[in-house]
Amino acid sequence: MDLQNNPYRKDFPLLMEQNVVYLDSSATSQRPFSVLEAEKKFYECANANPLRGLYGLSMEATNQVEHARELVQNFIHANKACEIIFTRNATESLNLLAYSYGLSHLKAGDEIIVSIMEHHSNMLPWQMVAEQTGATIRYLECTDEGEITEEHLNAVFSDKTKLVAIAHISNVFGRINPVETIISMAHERGAVVVMDCAQSALHVPIDVQKLDVDFIVFSGHKMLAPMGIGVLYGKESLLKEMPPFLVGGEMIESVTIHGAKYAELPYKFEAGTGNAGGAVALGVAIAYIQSVGFDAIQEREHALTAFALEKMKEIEGVHMIGSKNADEHCGILTFTLDGVHPHDVSSILDFDQIAVRAGHHCAQPLMDYLKVSSTTRASIAFYNTQEDIEKFVESLSQIRRKMGYGQ
Amino acid sequence: MDLQNNPYRKDFPLLMEQNVVYLDSSATSQRPFSVLEAEKKFYECANANPLRGLYGLSMEATNQVEHARELVQNFIHANKACEIIFTRNATESLNLLAYSYGLSHLKAGDEIIVSIMEHHSNMLPWQMVAEQTGATIRYLECTDEGEITEEHLNAVFSDKTKLVAIAHISNVFGRINPVETIISMAHERGAVVVMDCAQSALHVPIDVQKLDVDFIVFSGHKMLAPMGIGVLYGKESLLKEMPPFLVGGEMIESVTIHGAKYAELPYKFEAGTGNAGGAVALGVAIAYIQSVGFDAIQEREHALTAFALEKMKEIEGVHMIGSKNADEHCGILTFTLDGVHPHDVSSILDFDQIAVRAGHHCAQPLMDYLKVSSTTRASIAFYNTQEDIEKFVESLSQIRRKMGYGQ
Repeated sequence: MDLQNNPYRKDFPLLMEQNVVYLDSSATSQRPFSVLEAEKKFYECANANPLRGLYGLSMEATNQVEHARELVQNFIHANKACEIIFTRNATESLNLLAYSYGLSHLKAGDEIIVSIMEHHSNMLPWQMVAEQTGATIRYLECTDEGEITEEHLNAVFSDKTKLVAIAHISNVFGRINPVETIISMAHERGAVVVMDCAQSALHVPIDVQKLDVDFIVFSGHKMLAPMGIGVLYGKESLLKEMPPFLVGGEMIESVTIHGAKYAELPYKFEAGTGNAGGAVALGVAIAYIQSVGFDAIQEREHALTAFALEKMKEIEGVHMIGSKNADEHCGILTFTLDGVHPHDVSSILDFDQIAVRAGHHCAQPLMDYLKVSSTTRASIAFYNTQEDIEKFVESLSQIRRKMGYGQ
Repeated sequence: MDLQNNPYRKDFPLLMEQNVVYLDSSATSQRPFSVLEAEKKFYECANANPLRGLYGLSMEATNQVEHARELVQNFIHANKACEIIFTRNATESLNLLAYSYGLSHLKAGDEIIVSIMEHHSNMLPWQMVAEQTGATIRYLECTDEGEITEEHLNAVFSDKTKLVAIAHISNVFGRINPVETIISMAHERGAVVVMDCAQSALHVPIDVQKLDVDFIVFSGHKMLAPMGIGVLYGKESLLKEMPPFLVGGEMIESVTIHGAKYAELPYKFEAGTGNAGGAVALGVAIAYIQSVGFDAIQEREHALTAFALEKMKEIEGVHMIGSKNADEHCGILTFTLDGVHPHDVSSILDFDQIAVRAGHHCAQPLMDYLKVSSTTRASIAFYNTQEDIEKFVESLSQIRRKMGYGQ
């Protein structure tokens, strides 16, 4: 594979027009022309309030949104389109689950398993549920390299387990968690699994039926779509019996001064005018991802990751977080540099036009667990090139010297 | 004023490119080129995750979002930018208030005043609060023409009143409600006022400090901005003591396995990656509205409304809902047509490429109150022309004949 010449890069206007080595795709991805054009075109050609109007333009808007829903359904291989709920982002999807499923299904004595590596978005909602219901959280631990072993799993699962909150891929380690095992252990105990796919949706194929996972969430903006659109998938049988979360227009069948009869799925969970332009653009983002294909995406990410890991090993003072194997990173390279604060690492890299993230990565409990206060993270997507990595590694290799260390 | 030649129309690509008489702006407005371009440009030039990165691109994204927040602050004359919370839409803003303020401040015995003309979005959340807290809802009534009189107000206010939910402008009547009186009556009793500005933000200037209103909400998509971005304004003193609603990334200062310390305003209420592109575009929409000016907007809407009302009077079987005065409609013309179901009215108008809304307008309790099952609504914005109205009236005048009535 030719890592210098990336056939996809030209599709991404920011990468073509801005002088930046973008290595922060885990925070938010870049978006291809086709996605940006699709959103603009929606407003130019089909802009009306979907679902509400009986006229041509509104029906066209409705059709486009429902087509986007089917593209999402197909993307994660859901059984039905009504199992796809459009939200703002993964965070909102998780809060919807916590408020609607969590508060109505959990009670004192029940146990919620939350992995220690969860993003705050898949931890704080369950802390809220625990506080309000009296349920207890049991934190699922992992090795220093981010591996969740059977021993870790056996230590937290019990007959009281009612819900498991687990990232498909940690945004710090980049390792794929043993979700098949977790789902089967949960189901044996009658518990449901909430899988956070924010970090995986752009990197690995997801088949919700094959996994038999109960709920998954992801954000459009981390998978080439615009900001402001996200997804909640849930099994129809579960979504059906859940109470609504946000209430208002379009999620009802009828309203009186005494109460409401709620609409069918998926509308029950989509109150108010949604982000139709965003949903349409998400559909185009999915079509783009499928046109590249996960094989090509993974091959490219893996090769770039392997190249980066090899080069980073040679830099004095660099300590990688997570696995030693390049194929257990999904493009995420989290590290510390001896004697230099990650904020300084990030700022010095920025001086060389290299964009990486520094801090706790919205995973403070994991930082505490790993006994680091913060780290630097470079994250790779399929649109990156070997040149990006070379520039990053070259700049990184100079930091300790610039900070006055001997090297 | 030259109603045939509209200098603003050329700024709206859909109106220029599609063969449609768009009279459904109360459901969603059209968007000018400048707004669509601004959103696209954000992704092409400044696309990174705001607030999270320490590198140039992310800081630029942050600056653009915070600049948009200041534009919103200025638009409604809020005291501080931190009083502006970005949400998805008015519905989410109202739910945030219900969950965060409502559930923590109301209790059994308290009374919530909700006007009978509220959109479901400003009624269902308060029904939920009443159900969960034991508070009681008192419905504020109005005349058949949509006027809320002192008598109506005196009938519902009491010493138990703790919160008043009121539309600035009803989406059915189009009349401006006596919000100054309502706010002062509420404050005399120590109650807060939640004002739904979804219908007013594009039509009348709002000065939250002059009104001394406690909370207002509105949706970007009804005021020239894209879908997926909305606003909650609240007085700082009230927002400060409210608990968070959605929890997750970026709305925290620190997190442990035991709980979180929440971030300052406005971030406490903005969990997860927000719709940065949408916020930036909302800022540009506001700049566009200000460049036209509310005087010009109102003059044009008023003249078109007066022209339409005059012509509609001449059509047999048409019954207007609301005031007889054109200046009490803010561009909203809701009506019934004897013997023809509103869905048929809408469909026949659609056959002539005229887009209006038919149904209950997410205000079923008002329909019940007015003893109509549903109505048709044409809603005018400043980008409409006299020709739009002429086509609408001409088509409307043929409907009863087409349906086999004698006229």
